[in-house]
Amino acid sequence: MRTLITLTTDFGLADGFVGVLHGVIHAIAPDAHVIDLSHEIAPQHILEGALVLAHSVPYLPQRAIHLCIVDPGVGSARKPLALAVGETIFVAPDNGVVSLAVAEAAKRVGDAPRAFHLNNPRYWLPRLSRTFHARDIFAPVAAHLANGVPLTALGAPVEEWVTLTLPQPTRRADGAWVGHVIYIDRFGNLIVNLTESDLAAFDPRALNIEIGGRVVRGLVDSYAEVAPGELAALIGSSWKLEIAQREGNAAQALGVKVGEPVVVREAEDRRP
Amino acid sequence: MRTLITLTTDFGLADGFVGVLHGVIHAIAPDAHVIDLSHEIAPQHILEGALVLAHSVPYLPQRAIHLCIVDPGVGSARKPLALAVGETIFVAPDNGVVSLAVAEAAKRVGDAPRAFHLNNPRYWLPRLSRTFHARDIFAPVAAHLANGVPLTALGAPVEEWVTLTLPQPTRRADGAWVGHVIYIDRFGNLIVNLTESDLAAFDPRALNIEIGGRVVRGLVDSYAEVAPGELAALIGSSWKLEIAQREGNAAQALGVKVGEPVVVREAEDRRP
Amino acid sequence: MRTLITLTTDFGLADGFVGVLHGVIHAIAPDAHVIDLSHEIAPQHILEGALVLAHSVPYLPQRAIHLCIVDPGVGSARKPLALAVGETIFVAPDNGVVSLAVAEAAKRVGDAPRAFHLNNPRYWLPRLSRTFHARDIFAPVAAHLANGVPLTALGAPVEEWVTLTLPQPTRRADGAWVGHVIYIDRFGNLIVNLTESDLAAFDPRALNIEIGGRVVRGLVDSYAEVAPGELAALIGSSWKLEIAQREGNAAQALGVKVGEPVVVREAEDRRP
Repeated sequence: MRTLITLTTDFGLADGFVGVLHGVIHAIAPDAHVIDLSHEIAPQHILEGALVLAHSVPYLPQRAIHLCIVDPGVGSARKPLALAVGETIFVAPDNGVVSLAVAEAAKRVGDAPRAFHLNNPRYWLPRLSRTFHARDIFAPVAAHLANGVPLTALGAPVEEWVTLTLPQPTRRADGAWVGHVIYIDRFGNLIVNLTESDLAAFDPRALNIEIGGRVVRGLVDSYAEVAPGELAALIGSSWKLEIAQREGNAAQALGVKVGEPVVVREAEDRRP
Repeated sequence: MRTLITLTTDFGLADGFVGVLHGVIHAIAPDAHVIDLSHEIAPQHILEGALVLAHSVPYLPQRAIHLCIVDPGVGSARKPLALAVGETIFVAPDNGVVSLAVAEAAKRVGDAPRAFHLNNPRYWLPRLSRTFHARDIFAPVAAHLANGVPLTALGAPVEEWVTLTLPQPTRRADGAWVGHVIYIDRFGNLIVNLTESDLAAFDPRALNIEIGGRVVRGLVDSYAEVAPGELAALIGSSWKLEIAQREGNAAQALGVKVGEPVVVREAEDRRP
Repeated sequence: MRTLITLTTDFGLADGFVGVLHGVIHAIAPDAHVIDLSHEIAPQHILEGALVLAHSVPYLPQRAIHLCIVDPGVGSARKPLALAVGETIFVAPDNGVVSLAVAEAAKRVGDAPRAFHLNNPRYWLPRLSRTFHARDIFAPVAAHLANGVPLTALGAPVEEWVTLTLPQPTRRADGAWVGHVIYIDRFGNLIVNLTESDLAAFDPRALNIEIGGRVVRGLVDSYAEVAPGELAALIGSSWKLEIAQREGNAAQALGVKVGEPVVVREAEDRRP
């Protein structure tokens, strides 16, 4: 099977940067299969890139190379890295952008990641620019990996790398969870850092979810359970709490942003 | 030849949803050839998705699987469907989003569509989410179809499905056509629900097209026939009446939206 | 190796136009490898398309077919062209949109381009629309070229074609360069028409770069050399002078647009 390479960047699709990455990869590894995960990460927003990657990787083949470039420190001392977990390899600047996906993969596979500093210029493009290492270092390296070049040839092992810490939800003395909106998707759905298992102790129909001065009552099984324009809470596709507005945009309706606190507590009565 | 799968959704390209669809398909059907038709359908705008698909399908190979997901009812009782017309298979929620393309294909092939309720979980991902059936049902099913799994294995035949009705143009007693803008493209061109054959009885140079309080005189053969900034009417690439502004944006210039009425009547004199 | 076709257009990704191009190419040349360079060229902005293509082509395989469609004159007398330079073929309307990339390729290869008027309808789609020649002429022709159809079969040789002239920087009597912003990328970085070699005579640390009433001192080797929010000047990834704001957007910070003048002169002292 052709080796899979995925691309996640904050490059947008207007300037030709992404097309050039595809071209550089194709020239080195014409048989690789390349998938674009997202190129619309907000410019230089490392955490957003990390979340998009972490939510996607569990649904992608394990034998894959994930190139993830949100790189405000390009050209500085920050290291270009490859991190391997089982059959999965992540190629990225050492700024944490792949750390959430790496941690999840390591947990799933039950193995510690192996990290390499991509410092062997033999696998880069011949001339290094100051601002586009995705083209000059990361894409060529990913392509050579797809061709079977071993990680050990690409650079020296390293023991440490930057990891991001997601804001963690807290549990209050009264049993309520306090979480935060960590991501807002195209539909305006609010993804909250409370997982299905965090909420497992509650009766899903007997919850109050407080956000932006409003209370959403109970978890539903589909948007269609509420009337158009109403807010709904459910376990979303990344298995986290999600607040949506049916046929609308919850982020706009509530006027909230990433970071907004969300309180989940036992309700006095059940949603029917 | 590798089986073609096309994707049309309202998912946008920022959140990684589309990349995940590609990944799920690639894992099941690595030899399929996947083309993105559009992922920028306005959120939950079923008719817009239906029109983009219907305008594209006549130019795509007949042996193809078209996945089309605009699915405000995800998780509700609305059925996941496959509709087959000749060698073409449409995979979509049962909300009409593929119905225009299906009807056109059926007319071209001269055969009634066969419909199947995709209710065999053997061809889904192992765990079904509440909000992302494109990932969990539709993409896996499309990939299995590309691998040659027969439609009859994927679910039970059904006799009925939701169809959209496009607003139809009417003809007035004085012979004038009254149509509507049904779609506005990136360039601000206004696509009207009047076809080339609707207008065949008129002399194309001797027409008045009334829209937004303005009158456009005659059909031209190319934008270049009018001066920059002027309005032009012509038969567009989907063989419908189209109103454009040369080197501009007709929708902005006229301040009109989808639904705007358009009156076409015989003019007193011809455009030279 | 599968023949590479790249696509650069102003079509956007919403309307299905790009998907149709992919479908038309796939039907004729199923083994071609197709890469999207950009479909977000500003509508009808020929120079922008020309620059994106010219900046990308040096990083793409030389054996390639570049389809580039920004075509306000579609349907008029402007010719559809193929221009060949060495192993590289450009397919585009005759409006200059590929002329910068063609000139650069010709310089690199040391050979004059050969041009052909694509006037053989045998290699077009059967029915020609008035507004979508990318679908009806250019994509089919590119696909036939990928299949090995010789250029001479596609149309008649021509000796002349439209070329764009980039605004050229000038050198003042006092030795200062006066250039202009020619492109602004997604990050708000300002690309200036002064190349690395134009500035080779200066000490890179001892330059003043004047733009929008501000002075940027010296060239840096990476954004990280300046503090967040500060302006930085460096040689960018297309080997031209670039002005950036660290962790920000220089175009917004300076309130400048394409065309803004930039003066580069010797400074009285060096940046450390």
